[in-house]
Amino acid sequence: MTEPKKNLPVDEQLRVLKRGVADLVSEEDLRAKLTRSLETGQPLRVKLGADPTRPDLHLGHAVPLRKLRQFQDLGHKVIMLIGDFTATIGDPTGKSKTRPPLSIEEARANAQSYLEQCRLILRSESEVLEIRSNGEWLERLGYKDIIGLAAKYTVARILERDDFSKRLSSGTPISMHELLYPLTQGYDSVALQADVELGGTDQLFNNLVGRALQRDYGQEPQVVMTVPLLVGLDGTEKMSKSLDNYIGLSDEPHAIFAGLMKVPDPLLENYFTLLTDLSQERIAELLAGHPVEAHRQLAREVLAWLAPDADPDAAEERFRSVAKGGIPEDLPEVSVESSELNDEGRVSLARLVALAGLEPSNGAARKLMQNRGLKIGGEVYTDPQGTVSREQLAAPGGLILQKGKDKFARLMLKQ
Amino acid sequence: MTEPKKNLPVDEQLRVLKRGVADLVSEEDLRAKLTRSLETGQPLRVKLGADPTRPDLHLGHAVPLRKLRQFQDLGHKVIMLIGDFTATIGDPTGKSKTRPPLSIEEARANAQSYLEQCRLILRSESEVLEIRSNGEWLERLGYKDIIGLAAKYTVARILERDDFSKRLSSGTPISMHELLYPLTQGYDSVALQADVELGGTDQLFNNLVGRALQRDYGQEPQVVMTVPLLVGLDGTEKMSKSLDNYIGLSDEPHAIFAGLMKVPDPLLENYFTLLTDLSQERIAELLAGHPVEAHRQLAREVLAWLAPDADPDAAEERFRSVAKGGIPEDLPEVSVESSELNDEGRVSLARLVALAGLEPSNGAARKLMQNRGLKIGGEVYTDPQGTVSREQLAAPGGLILQKGKDKFARLMLKQ
Repeated sequence: MTEPKKNLPVDEQLRVLKRGVADLVSEEDLRAKLTRSLETGQPLRVKLGADPTRPDLHLGHAVPLRKLRQFQDLGHKVIMLIGDFTATIGDPTGKSKTRPPLSIEEARANAQSYLEQCRLILRSESEVLEIRSNGEWLERLGYKDIIGLAAKYTVARILERDDFSKRLSSGTPISMHELLYPLTQGYDSVALQADVELGGTDQLFNNLVGRALQRDYGQEPQVVMTVPLLVGLDGTEKMSKSLDNYIGLSDEPHAIFAGLMKVPDPLLENYFTLLTDLSQERIAELLAGHPVEAHRQLAREVLAWLAPDADPDAAEERFRSVAKGGIPEDLPEVSVESSELNDEGRVSLARLVALAGLEPSNGAARKLMQNRGLKIGGEVYTDPQGTVSREQLAAPGGLILQKGKDKFARLMLKQ
Repeated sequence: MTEPKKNLPVDEQLRVLKRGVADLVSEEDLRAKLTRSLETGQPLRVKLGADPTRPDLHLGHAVPLRKLRQFQDLGHKVIMLIGDFTATIGDPTGKSKTRPPLSIEEARANAQSYLEQCRLILRSESEVLEIRSNGEWLERLGYKDIIGLAAKYTVARILERDDFSKRLSSGTPISMHELLYPLTQGYDSVALQADVELGGTDQLFNNLVGRALQRDYGQEPQVVMTVPLLVGLDGTEKMSKSLDNYIGLSDEPHAIFAGLMKVPDPLLENYFTLLTDLSQERIAELLAGHPVEAHRQLAREVLAWLAPDADPDAAEERFRSVAKGGIPEDLPEVSVESSELNDEGRVSLARLVALAGLEPSNGAARKLMQNRGLKIGGEVYTDPQGTVSREQLAAPGGLILQKGKDKFARLMLKQ
């Protein structure tokens, strides 16, 4: 990724920071803050809030993280705000499945894992990275403080939030505490004296609450900057683990390569803008050329910052070999105990797929076969009731199973 | 007022308690609670909340207080909840003139004066009167408790409150903290484990929130009972000090008598129902007779419980004498310093009216005259620029000023 370039002229900084941004409220304010920072040598404080609920990050998360990295490279300070205190409260009504209350230990463990993954992208030096917990100030708020906080915002403005107004008009219940969460999130900006708050476009409203509250508390209002939500490999939904349309930040280099080669063509420009530092001219040039070459360059660019220690040629080689039906050399090997075999000396393929870790259960393995997702020796295998003999497992080189394009396992009978 | 009659049969208690009630949610619940109270000997806990903001009580306040007294006479316990903690918060936006934040000393002084006046109607024995402050539990609530409390109620239900829905649809701002106050008030019922909450009809919604919250906190829901807001002597607006259509609880007996003689005829039945214990038959009889006699009986009934030590005949006598243009014997006397006279030995009437305490300022005194509210020697005096001579003030008996029907002062030149 980029190297630090401190004290760049304001226009230069703005050019970098505005790239790929969806909302910027407001450019004038950001310019003023950058100008003052240059004059005083005082870096901007750039906040990103995170709920410590989902520990596995993917390329969608990389979009705001890369923007934060740009701020760091320009000499500014990133504040990762972990909502561990609010996570322990969760949704007290128990109705929201995305907000189950966590124990403080779970919240801390999630936060730990989250931050480790963020460090794949962010700089870690304390001059440019500060990690905070919202319990620091929320735990101290009493009834009077909360009434005072709530008094600063009107019901009408909170209900303007898109999802609230839709739910209210459709009669879907909104619990009173849900209205308090945006205020709390805004108060975090007051407590942190944030200069800029970054977020996905879905956070625009909440972050504007912070901007308004800072003004009410006598602070200079923060700049609100949003980045688009990355569309996943299915080409329609936003990237998410549950939709299985994602590329994980900690995936193997060849898997990242393979994933990026699958990006739907209409999304290429978007991926280039959000996930590489290539100039607009270079991107236009690539898009005008052959799509396979464009994908290849995208994959190499992303690998360069996401897995800087990996050999991109090796990753590509492995991807190519697999794509051509080849089998990579360094397959994970799995031993099969004799006790797995039945009286006739056979074991079901579904069981082997699960043993190999390609699917979590025999049932999922059978579904994989029905969906034509399993290959044996390069051939699609579709019989979910199929079995394999002791001899096949004991053969030299064992039995090689392949899931999709790039997941393999070599099964061998334990001697 | 009535004497205690403990352990009355439930039907008998219900008959007393339902008199003059506007809303009762629900009669079945009240019956069940009364039945259990009779069986266990455990009195019901009957809550009335009060903001310690207005220290002068009038007959409008007497309506709920008399209902509480009925509960006490039946052996139940009244809990006067003073919102002194919330009064110190007030309306943090500063927009509501009726809710200026008070210092804790002001709030306590107001509460003291409020409770003294309540004791004109309520019994004071600790078995039937408990005085509490909402700071006891609100001061201890933290962020997590408040989120948990708010989670128990939906926005739609809060916005159902009549004044909220009107303001929201007319675009009049509602501050977020205003939505929290009904929840807090409801939480008071949880903290107090109230069996019944009493209030004016304007409190129906807030008190129903308490009923719902108690259920959510695993308590038996309180019965909500409201009494009508008493219409004032103008016959249209609810009785209030600022509209000057009131009879103060601490007024002189003859002034109370005079006020009740002025109750508009269409309100008589209402006043009899809410402010006396006369039977419906007796009320019907009085209403069928001469209106003056009905007013007289109303006045004597109210004096009997509001000023039990006063001689009702004397109060009536004084009222009659004044009504006929007579002048009572025990006038307040006011000395006028010679220095008040000008070079010509005269002083303005406006100044004298203010000196006598009949109006707060010379300007108000002039307005009184313009409105034909001042009499001198039984004659209406209307010249706001009028003056009085040294001789008039020095005459035996001095100068008698009369405001309205029953306020007098005797002014005499200081020797």
